[in-house]
Amino acid sequence: MKKIEVVENVLQANDAVAATNRQRLGRAGLLAVNLMSSPGSGKTTLLEKSIPALGPDLPCAVLVGDLQTTRDAERLGPLAVQAVQINTGTGCHLSAPQVSRGLDALDLDGLAFVFIENVGNMVCPAAFDLGEHVRVVLLSVPEGDDKVAKYPTLFQRADAVLITKMDLADLMEFNLERVRQDLARLNSRAPVILHSSKTGQGMTQWLNWLRQQRFPVTSGPA
Amino acid sequence: MKKIEVVENVLQANDAVAATNRQRLGRAGLLAVNLMSSPGSGKTTLLEKSIPALGPDLPCAVLVGDLQTTRDAERLGPLAVQAVQINTGTGCHLSAPQVSRGLDALDLDGLAFVFIENVGNMVCPAAFDLGEHVRVVLLSVPEGDDKVAKYPTLFQRADAVLITKMDLADLMEFNLERVRQDLARLNSRAPVILHSSKTGQGMTQWLNWLRQQRFPVTSGPA
Repeated sequence: MKKIEVVENVLQANDAVAATNRQRLGRAGLLAVNLMSSPGSGKTTLLEKSIPALGPDLPCAVLVGDLQTTRDAERLGPLAVQAVQINTGTGCHLSAPQVSRGLDALDLDGLAFVFIENVGNMVCPAAFDLGEHVRVVLLSVPEGDDKVAKYPTLFQRADAVLITKMDLADLMEFNLERVRQDLARLNSRAPVILHSSKTGQGMTQWLNWLRQQRFPVTSGPA
Repeated sequence: MKKIEVVENVLQANDAVAATNRQRLGRAGLLAVNLMSSPGSGKTTLLEKSIPALGPDLPCAVLVGDLQTTRDAERLGPLAVQAVQINTGTGCHLSAPQVSRGLDALDLDGLAFVFIENVGNMVCPAAFDLGEHVRVVLLSVPEGDDKVAKYPTLFQRADAVLITKMDLADLMEFNLERVRQDLARLNSRAPVILHSSKTGQGMTQWLNWLRQQRFPVTSGPA
């Protein structure tokens, strides 16, 4: 009983900070996107391609979670965007207080998007609201077409699902129909975007989706 | 403070059960192998290839951890081995009590190996002793050559590291030297086995390593 009680306390404390983060981000007129996936499914590569494509009218910043190293933030260096690396040590997900401190290190003025690249993990990040406006889950083709059914919690609450590394689909004999069917059982809301950073497949659809998400934040109905 | 105290209690309770598991497995004269990796790095495929190759003189059983579904245990069905699926719900790793209950469902008599396929997660399983004798960590080529440095906790305590899906190394421009260097900083003990279930690369080395690990359990010095 004690364990459950404390876990609930931790989640409640997290959610309170997440609500504050969301208000702060909304007041700044920007959209916060929580990117979640297994390690190596292409979160940083997606950002490397997306941020220049969004262009100077939609400036971005990035908070990057990893246990250790500053490699992902360094990879984003050439894009000349604000990028803050959050090292979680042995922590298996980002928390709302970590994101709050990350936001303190950013100049939010004039930003259109803050991307929050979560720790590579298909389980734990699902439980922690960070104050984001939308949740994007990546599933890369080499991980296999059985992962939606095996790790449902993350996919259930996704606002969009990107199937990445689609250029490998034939080679890996990836059964897209199986993924679509498993997703349809869990989440009928999230669009499925077939994506390849290598060939550019799905890039326009992804960028259009991102721009559409931003609209209600700045000028949607009250 | 309360959170830390409870986490320590959970780990202590886990470790006590793990010690009991290890004694029980050792008394039965078998070697328990904890397989850990990200989702989709090839744990089940490795077992599908390894168990028949070990042959009838070295009978195997498998405990398979997943949040949901019994797909992995079903995949092992054609091998005619004892396979128990452990569903963790939202749990991000296997625990020693779950393994203890899994062992209750097996007939350990005459077994040479029990493989414990952990939940696909590169973070949390590292903290939980299950009572295994050896820890094997898989890193698949498509996950990228930066993962050892970014997720060090799992690699630090590995007894062997398998780089899987090596048939994709050229296509993915995988920098093996970078992986070796990152590993050398964390763990000088674990052999690195280059493996491909598709081409058979590294299979002999992997099976020989497994057989060697078993030796000290049954007839090593006290």
